[in-house]
Amino acid sequence: MTPHIELRPIGRVESPLTDPAEAPKQGDEGAPDAWLVFEPEVLDALEGIRPGDEILVLTWLDRADRGVLRVHPRSDLSRPLQGVFSTRSPDRPNPIGLHRVEVHSIDGTRMQVRNLEAVDGTPIVDVKPVLSGDTGER
Amino acid sequence: MTPHIELRPIGRVESPLTDPAEAPKQGDEGAPDAWLVFEPEVLDALEGIRPGDEILVLTWLDRADRGVLRVHPRSDLSRPLQGVFSTRSPDRPNPIGLHRVEVHSIDGTRMQVRNLEAVDGTPIVDVKPVLSGDTGER
Repeated sequence: MTPHIELRPIGRVESPLTDPAEAPKQGDEGAPDAWLVFEPEVLDALEGIRPGDEILVLTWLDRADRGVLRVHPRSDLSRPLQGVFSTRSPDRPNPIGLHRVEVHSIDGTRMQVRNLEAVDGTPIVDVKPVLSGDTGER
Repeated sequence: MTPHIELRPIGRVESPLTDPAEAPKQGDEGAPDAWLVFEPEVLDALEGIRPGDEILVLTWLDRADRGVLRVHPRSDLSRPLQGVFSTRSPDRPNPIGLHRVEVHSIDGTRMQVRNLEAVDGTPIVDVKPVLSGDTGER
């Protein structure tokens, strides 16, 4: 087996969402605005992000079950079990959350974003700009 | 500081690309076809992925420099330094690669994909379907 890899949180989500069961499945399904609160040591890495930008926020879904390999899609028991890699279930071997959000405002290491479905306290592990190569319907 | 998090590789990239300096910056810039070779223990998690699907492959860019916070975008020295979170530079505190690829074929734990810019041996950490919420130009 491959050696393990260490992720270091670069910040945390501050959100009115506290219960994973009540969080919407995706940000465009009525998720609230939230704050991304970054560690002071990554301040320089935020340079160039501006209000109005669309960004991808990668989080560590620390309440997920890493032992789950198959799920009923969208927790709908009437749907047949499916491998987690063909779903967006948070339960998966490496529960990395991928959230596309719009930047509303930035104040130093605090960034307000729209429509983030991650719960309060979720660790942030990376931020990337949206590229045209990410786009297109399935 | 937040406790560290352990990522477990779920597979590896097999690719003719071996030199990161020669890899294209994005998959749509002439990257070759490649194989994703998964660990046998995650076989069930692949269920439901089919040839023709567009997927997001998350990798760990193990040759990246985690200490870099600002870069010249696209390694172009004529462009001003920018925070890595506003670029797709592999050098960043948590070098997670995000690759959108099309599935060409699947044979058990081996999956052939088109246009992957990751180099040979890169650890794979997650696979997700593309959702319409990921899409749209910036």
